[in-house]
Amino acid sequence: MIRVGVIGASGYAGGELVRYLIGHPGVQITYLASGTYAGKHLSAAYPSLLGQDLPLCEVYDADSAADKADLFFQAQGNGIGMKVAPALLQYGKKFIDVPADFRLKDLDEYAHYYKMEHTAPELLEEAVYGIPELRADEIAKARLIANCGCYATGAILALAPVAASGIGDMDSIIVDSKSGVSGAGRSKLDVSGLFCEVNEGFKAYAVAGHRHTAEIEQELGALAKKDIKVSFTPHLIPQNRGILTTAYVDTGASTDELAALYNDFYLDKPFVVILEKGQQPNTKNVFGTNYCHIAVTLDQRTGRAIITSAIDNMGKGAAGQAVQNMNLMCDFEQTTGLMLPAVYP
Amino acid sequence: MIRVGVIGASGYAGGELVRYLIGHPGVQITYLASGTYAGKHLSAAYPSLLGQDLPLCEVYDADSAADKADLFFQAQGNGIGMKVAPALLQYGKKFIDVPADFRLKDLDEYAHYYKMEHTAPELLEEAVYGIPELRADEIAKARLIANCGCYATGAILALAPVAASGIGDMDSIIVDSKSGVSGAGRSKLDVSGLFCEVNEGFKAYAVAGHRHTAEIEQELGALAKKDIKVSFTPHLIPQNRGILTTAYVDTGASTDELAALYNDFYLDKPFVVILEKGQQPNTKNVFGTNYCHIAVTLDQRTGRAIITSAIDNMGKGAAGQAVQNMNLMCDFEQTTGLMLPAVYP
Amino acid sequence: MIRVGVIGASGYAGGELVRYLIGHPGVQITYLASGTYAGKHLSAAYPSLLGQDLPLCEVYDADSAADKADLFFQAQGNGIGMKVAPALLQYGKKFIDVPADFRLKDLDEYAHYYKMEHTAPELLEEAVYGIPELRADEIAKARLIANCGCYATGAILALAPVAASGIGDMDSIIVDSKSGVSGAGRSKLDVSGLFCEVNEGFKAYAVAGHRHTAEIEQELGALAKKDIKVSFTPHLIPQNRGILTTAYVDTGASTDELAALYNDFYLDKPFVVILEKGQQPNTKNVFGTNYCHIAVTLDQRTGRAIITSAIDNMGKGAAGQAVQNMNLMCDFEQTTGLMLPAVYP
Amino acid sequence: MIRVGVIGASGYAGGELVRYLIGHPGVQITYLASGTYAGKHLSAAYPSLLGQDLPLCEVYDADSAADKADLFFQAQGNGIGMKVAPALLQYGKKFIDVPADFRLKDLDEYAHYYKMEHTAPELLEEAVYGIPELRADEIAKARLIANCGCYATGAILALAPVAASGIGDMDSIIVDSKSGVSGAGRSKLDVSGLFCEVNEGFKAYAVAGHRHTAEIEQELGALAKKDIKVSFTPHLIPQNRGILTTAYVDTGASTDELAALYNDFYLDKPFVVILEKGQQPNTKNVFGTNYCHIAVTLDQRTGRAIITSAIDNMGKGAAGQAVQNMNLMCDFEQTTGLMLPAVYP
Repeated sequence: MIRVGVIGASGYAGGELVRYLIGHPGVQITYLASGTYAGKHLSAAYPSLLGQDLPLCEVYDADSAADKADLFFQAQGNGIGMKVAPALLQYGKKFIDVPADFRLKDLDEYAHYYKMEHTAPELLEEAVYGIPELRADEIAKARLIANCGCYATGAILALAPVAASGIGDMDSIIVDSKSGVSGAGRSKLDVSGLFCEVNEGFKAYAVAGHRHTAEIEQELGALAKKDIKVSFTPHLIPQNRGILTTAYVDTGASTDELAALYNDFYLDKPFVVILEKGQQPNTKNVFGTNYCHIAVTLDQRTGRAIITSAIDNMGKGAAGQAVQNMNLMCDFEQTTGLMLPAVYP
Repeated sequence: MIRVGVIGASGYAGGELVRYLIGHPGVQITYLASGTYAGKHLSAAYPSLLGQDLPLCEVYDADSAADKADLFFQAQGNGIGMKVAPALLQYGKKFIDVPADFRLKDLDEYAHYYKMEHTAPELLEEAVYGIPELRADEIAKARLIANCGCYATGAILALAPVAASGIGDMDSIIVDSKSGVSGAGRSKLDVSGLFCEVNEGFKAYAVAGHRHTAEIEQELGALAKKDIKVSFTPHLIPQNRGILTTAYVDTGASTDELAALYNDFYLDKPFVVILEKGQQPNTKNVFGTNYCHIAVTLDQRTGRAIITSAIDNMGKGAAGQAVQNMNLMCDFEQTTGLMLPAVYP
Repeated sequence: MIRVGVIGASGYAGGELVRYLIGHPGVQITYLASGTYAGKHLSAAYPSLLGQDLPLCEVYDADSAADKADLFFQAQGNGIGMKVAPALLQYGKKFIDVPADFRLKDLDEYAHYYKMEHTAPELLEEAVYGIPELRADEIAKARLIANCGCYATGAILALAPVAASGIGDMDSIIVDSKSGVSGAGRSKLDVSGLFCEVNEGFKAYAVAGHRHTAEIEQELGALAKKDIKVSFTPHLIPQNRGILTTAYVDTGASTDELAALYNDFYLDKPFVVILEKGQQPNTKNVFGTNYCHIAVTLDQRTGRAIITSAIDNMGKGAAGQAVQNMNLMCDFEQTTGLMLPAVYP
Repeated sequence: MIRVGVIGASGYAGGELVRYLIGHPGVQITYLASGTYAGKHLSAAYPSLLGQDLPLCEVYDADSAADKADLFFQAQGNGIGMKVAPALLQYGKKFIDVPADFRLKDLDEYAHYYKMEHTAPELLEEAVYGIPELRADEIAKARLIANCGCYATGAILALAPVAASGIGDMDSIIVDSKSGVSGAGRSKLDVSGLFCEVNEGFKAYAVAGHRHTAEIEQELGALAKKDIKVSFTPHLIPQNRGILTTAYVDTGASTDELAALYNDFYLDKPFVVILEKGQQPNTKNVFGTNYCHIAVTLDQRTGRAIITSAIDNMGKGAAGQAVQNMNLMCDFEQTTGLMLPAVYP
């Protein structure tokens, strides 16, 4: 049994990690940090956890944490991972940072998008960008993982075969993404997050400026072995979970070549499912899971490939992927604790 | 490993049974019957099941079914169980009927509410009404279970302590229930089920005439050891899952007496959680699970107890409860495969 | 043209008043007060108002307000009306208070439910409880209206014929109400109001203690000419608007007597529609309007009448009713500006 | 008073037309055709219309229709307009076809996308494509209008300034649209339209093959004075109404040039609102209205303009626009009966 801890347990990603970890046969949750719920059972934050055997929440403290667990998930927010990772790594712990602190290799990009100074730049080189379908070997050897961003996961999985194969024009990429609202987290309170403001409405936001642009470009650029620029537009869907990504790229490939490319690329990847022709991914079908459904369509009239991918932003886009990364780091089967199908409907 | 089969696998309750059974460590799904999807993998009905190892769907046939599994769930609809149960029981199989065929002991009530002639009345006596919190011993010995109805589960669990204790006036019971839409199933297609007709709307239906009235009265009457009549009003909530029941009963008991009564009554019942004073159940907190959350409040000004209960109509109200019944019948721990918390949010 | 002002224009009720008043042929909006949006066009709060000809918002000031309008709606919140009404009345203005300050005639009840000391008790006697179906003549002569509460409107309209006729047992009344979320307003920010916390969930709240209990009892008691106590339970529906009320009362009346009673009682009331037998009100059908749909059903087995009513909590439950009250006070046809049907679906 | 008739009154677009026409001061609804509700008041289809003074529905008959009204809206479906328009035009009536029969000038395109033979090709030349912001003069003189499609309206208004000005590369256009579910209508009943199948899910459909592609290309091509091809991808939002369109086009223009272009282009167009920098359209803000909100953003890193537009698919995308067309045809102010703001929230 691996002893695991969750820092930021009362946020949405933290709560989702706890849910996955409760169902994981190889680990035990031995540490939970939450300032708001310190001294309380996590069911005070999530009554859905009533009856579950969990340690009480604590205010985060490095020594106490190090004493109680061997691997940590940090899910509290941007700017926290770079503060707590150094000490825990020094204690010999494994560390998976769910937010963005260790994702970008370029400090200027980090400063530009996150408006913060990085306080642990010395860890950036060893931090592995945690997307198991592309970096499983590195992840397995890593002690510090930068969990792939939610939008970035949907976009990278949709476009990785194109980037790696050279089958498309990498300057033509447009990523139009639509996300459920849980991505905004539980702690940001303003009018725009109220039920009545979100329900029965749909809008774009952060047009031409969203943070995940940088990691999408970094990872697809790495596959394509050149610098690339993408247009990325996020939108909010009036639903709790799910990201549907519609990606466009100019290509000279045929429908059959595209289908073959995607099926080959994801052949041994248990969580990526390439749909049959005529099917389209729906966020409902991956709700609460670590799966990613992908469809590839050639728009023959315009010579564009239209790739759609569906993930759960809290699953493959956050907690599920973090557990998948843990599985690789801890020598579990990659799929352990992650194979249950979506709750439907 | 117990070999289990699901008849009516492509309906909502059937799909939910498959989901629970995939996660159950002691059983293997060896038989799936669905006329619509015969010859196909169940993922043709539910793409959420892509990648799951399942037998192909078949048109139901008693001999073939009997050959392939030891215990059957029937989830196709009312009127089917009484047709297929006799043969399977004769083959020595265990049978859990999720719809209503074997719930009512009184054939006149059955005819009144279901407008059908019962074709297997000889089985009514041995059929056990499948609500494990009240009839665990009978269920453990049964070969034929009539799974408790969804509304009935919410109402019976809310009121059983009152009925069993005599603490309230059994002639004063009002049950005002609100259900998510999945209760209507996947096969009934009419305008009233369209998204736009349901979304952003709330209404009562079947006022003073809903079928579950009969089983609520039967079970609470059995506990109270007298005939009772309740007023039961179901409503539709514009959400997928969940039943919130608000029950009213005149009582002379104090708040403390009520709290003690409920906590005692459900002391060793792992799926029923009595909330602390000031908390109210929310269907979200039991989404996708077999749990039932209950709160008891005394309205001192009027001398009425107001009991609220939350279940997932597809979980504790259907598939989860069916698996709990199976666990009892097959000598598993009652909680096996049923302990995961709700997906939240 | 009557010059009207809205105090608290940027809240939900304020915005809805502006919407109704824009469509009213006999009035002109000449004053809008909002601290948050002072100096701005109200479209800064509600982009739905872009392109509408409206005065800029101001910080509320009695002299400035009195100079600019002849009739005022106060929609900012509880505790404001009793502060601003005295000065405006002294200026000879008409005043409609949408929140609760002037609704309860009993100061003890007010203190009990609202936890505030009343600062204008001298106005309570002349303030008319603004429910036009019951008090049209008083309203027409009043200068100060206490607009009927949202839940109270649904409950009172559902039960007024019973209370006025003596056809039911007034000690047996249970009011089980379900409301859309806009009733909570736009200014209260806490976790429980976030989209993800509300969406796909249903719960009761303020069980055995909601404030509107007092006004329901006051008005039904006035009709019944005796003190009464009701059990009132509010619930939250995951939708923006609408209140569905399910009311229960013991009665010896027959179905036909009940139908005749309700049809007679609301014969000349243009906004109350008694549905035909077998129909049930749905909040969707009154969305965005001042209508109230009512169905009456006798549960013959238990001798209870089950009355269901649907209103829009922002319409007949707040702004629509306020405009109806204004129409009476200003000698317009009661229906002026209020006859448009619901946006459906 | 113009006497108007609605053919197909019980569909969603028909019902919405009735709603707009009830609020229009210059017309009277004198004819309603609906096979399903023949002989009944339209409130049998839409209880939201209870209490409205309307003619009873009839089975459509050309002579009877011609006798009763002067202008007709056909909202029943594709393939109906080309059957009923010829006779009504011969009677000297004006005719607005809300579906697609008269939109495409190219019969091959029509046959390709609609899989039907056109039975009134002789009317295609005189039929005016009904988008008032581009063709007001032609509409004013027309007797036959092909009301612009819902997706097409959102896309064309978003891109018309680019197409007319030559400021962008017309071969680079991508239109990624997201629509509420009412666009599917009320009469198509299959599993995919059920509440539980739509709610909490998001997907693309008709990828690289949707019918509205043809009219978008036709109208933008006409403005650009050359043949163009666009990639158009529609998606379904789990909400009742609204289309949010995100359009991408390569451009050498600056942010300021784009802003000036759009503001100029829509200077005297009362229903198109260009948002200020930093604002984004939200479908909520145009709910139930004939407005279109547009934002233009330059993605400087990639040289793409990202234009977002929000309309109500039932309003500016169908019934509202049809009434706007009627206003032009009948010499009303373009805005008559269409100026009310959205119901919010």
